Amino acid sequence: MRMHRDTSLLLVIDLQVGLLPVLEFGEQAVEEASWLGGVAEALDVPVWLTEQYPEGLGESAPSLLASLEAPRMWRKTHFNAHAEPGFAQALAATGCRQIVLCGAEAHICVLQTGLALCEAGYGVAWLAEATSSRRRDEASLARRRMEQAGAQVVSADMVAYEWLERCDDTRFKDIHRRFLKERASRPLVFT
Amino acid sequence: MRMHRDTSLLLVIDLQVGLLPVLEFGEQAVEEASWLGGVAEALDVPVWLTEQYPEGLGESAPSLLASLEAPRMWRKTHFNAHAEPGFAQALAATGCRQIVLCGAEAHICVLQTGLALCEAGYGVAWLAEATSSRRRDEASLARRRMEQAGAQVVSADMVAYEWLERCDDTRFKDIHRRFLKERASRPLVFT
Amino acid sequence: MRMHRDTSLLLVIDLQVGLLPVLEFGEQAVEEASWLGGVAEALDVPVWLTEQYPEGLGESAPSLLASLEAPRMWRKTHFNAHAEPGFAQALAATGCRQIVLCGAEAHICVLQTGLALCEAGYGVAWLAEATSSRRRDEASLARRRMEQAGAQVVSADMVAYEWLERCDDTRFKDIHRRFLKERASRPLVFT
Amino acid sequence: MRMHRDTSLLLVIDLQVGLLPVLEFGEQAVEEASWLGGVAEALDVPVWLTEQYPEGLGESAPSLLASLEAPRMWRKTHFNAHAEPGFAQALAATGCRQIVLCGAEAHICVLQTGLALCEAGYGVAWLAEATSSRRRDEASLARRRMEQAGAQVVSADMVAYEWLERCDDTRFKDIHRRFLKERASRPLVFT
Repeated sequence: MRMHRDTSLLLVIDLQVGLLPVLEFGEQAVEEASWLGGVAEALDVPVWLTEQYPEGLGESAPSLLASLEAPRMWRKTHFNAHAEPGFAQALAATGCRQIVLCGAEAHICVLQTGLALCEAGYGVAWLAEATSSRRRDEASLARRRMEQAGAQVVSADMVAYEWLERCDDTRFKDIHRRFLKERASRPLVFT
Repeated sequence: MRMHRDTSLLLVIDLQVGLLPVLEFGEQAVEEASWLGGVAEALDVPVWLTEQYPEGLGESAPSLLASLEAPRMWRKTHFNAHAEPGFAQALAATGCRQIVLCGAEAHICVLQTGLALCEAGYGVAWLAEATSSRRRDEASLARRRMEQAGAQVVSADMVAYEWLERCDDTRFKDIHRRFLKERASRPLVFT
Repeated sequence: MRMHRDTSLLLVIDLQVGLLPVLEFGEQAVEEASWLGGVAEALDVPVWLTEQYPEGLGESAPSLLASLEAPRMWRKTHFNAHAEPGFAQALAATGCRQIVLCGAEAHICVLQTGLALCEAGYGVAWLAEATSSRRRDEASLARRRMEQAGAQVVSADMVAYEWLERCDDTRFKDIHRRFLKERASRPLVFT
Repeated sequence: MRMHRDTSLLLVIDLQVGLLPVLEFGEQAVEEASWLGGVAEALDVPVWLTEQYPEGLGESAPSLLASLEAPRMWRKTHFNAHAEPGFAQALAATGCRQIVLCGAEAHICVLQTGLALCEAGYGVAWLAEATSSRRRDEASLARRRMEQAGAQVVSADMVAYEWLERCDDTRFKDIHRRFLKERASRPLVFT
């Protein structure tokens, strides 16, 4: 599966202020989700955010919200976002078939959502450097389960270049100047 | 495969006192098996223990037995528990189709039992941090063979949250208070 | 899939002077691609090189060009070489069904080309020590996606010995003297 | 796939004196192949050895030959043993369908033989700690290709216990006393 910008949607799970301090590489997850969110919006790819029980875990990270123009927000109490009332219908209505998935915790809400999306027939791309748990090794176990379910593990760079396809149009020049150049020199950890 | 509490059974293989001293991360295996055993019993998920040749290898770890209310006990001489007379019939009679598997040694009795369960059509979840061998790398080889046979590698946290599904009922609040909070800060090694 | 010299083609992606300084193990990638290119030409296996936007990224590495007698050169603006006008038809016309793939960046142009080749029904062999990205871990993610798409990960030694099949003919003696002996003692990193 | 003693054959590839000094963990490969060879003979499992071009690479390791009673010997010039005249017919005639494979070099002769056996419909078990190349990472690449082709990666302990099945007969007691006890405390590296 290669990613196509006309059929993709970026889904960011539960990057909330109450959860971030305990995550391993939580700041990087927010930064990379924000970065790909910016690329997505520039290419008219929908961006959705979920928040798990915000009364307890707080709102989404301010820097994530600041980097996005108009994400669709979902509050949820199911760990699996796809089981939240209204979510499955709304997702199907977008016509998107490829879901780029990231957030926290990798082995609970991201995993359960990802497995449900695979079961529902979506192509799922697990954004490695923007998906995090308290314990990095527990996030790695989640990644393996997703791979077994058919998901691809991707980086934000991979997705951006697959969405862009070629380097000889104005779209590429704009995204390269605003996004790609900056990320190229940034150190990153891929869980 | 996501785990469901109505169709799951926890099967703990041979965590016996004569074997524990030679295991790598044997104490952690006992602790995590006990922890998930407690969650299982609180959610009415059956818990089964096996003991290989207890005349020689001794009884199950006392802390494991102390943490459980009424596990079903099996003595065996086959390395593969599923080949022990009566076991396959009893397991089928429970109606459970998803077996959470852990114990020792990963590459002998746990592996042979797990492969037999896959062959018999069960969904098998290999509990990574509660499955152990003398040599950690030999346990990892066992894990890979299980994955090739179709098993999923899980952590106790994954299983507990999949069994729970959502955070807005009394069941979750009870399990969170008694189990989830405590494990969250515990350091763990996933083989 | 074992590699056969009558149905193989070596495809080297974008090992250009403007890209090499930022690659991890870029020099090794050039050296190993050159080495296998020499073996390929000695066995009448076609060798193709691509260059991405050479106006900006420069020409292919001089040592790579110097090691080859008559590679077929492709300039491209699509990250996926197989989407470049004329490429797919020319490749199909060779009759080769096994593509040994290497070059840079692993997670962008090599990956997109490799996925497209898998989709088009080619057998793809990912040459591990001659495929590179800025970040080694991002190249590893690319390798995993290729494996999931059905590609095999190979070393240059593997390919050469599979092309040769046996040690008791003059072909082997010639290649052994000119190529195999020298590589045997060379330290290598496989991403 | 679990291993059964009635349908297994142990195939040791090219553990020759001219090759051993350059192998990583070559001594361990000889020791573990000898160990499992002894178990195999005690259980009436056939043991076959190959030698690649012994005029140049020398005979099999003396300690390996000393540990076996009556291995069947094959001289070969094809890297893939299964392509050597007479080999495929002789193997089919044994009726064995599960081949435990080990030896050197992992990424050349062991790999090519293993892939050919998979293609011919045999179940192949890759004996991790008795399979070696000059470069350990190149042996690991070979192992991955074998897994993709459907092979299982095993340890000698796994195979022995699967062949034995249970602990309450005289067969187990004999093998335990002569073989299993000793290996339990031996440090091992699994490539």
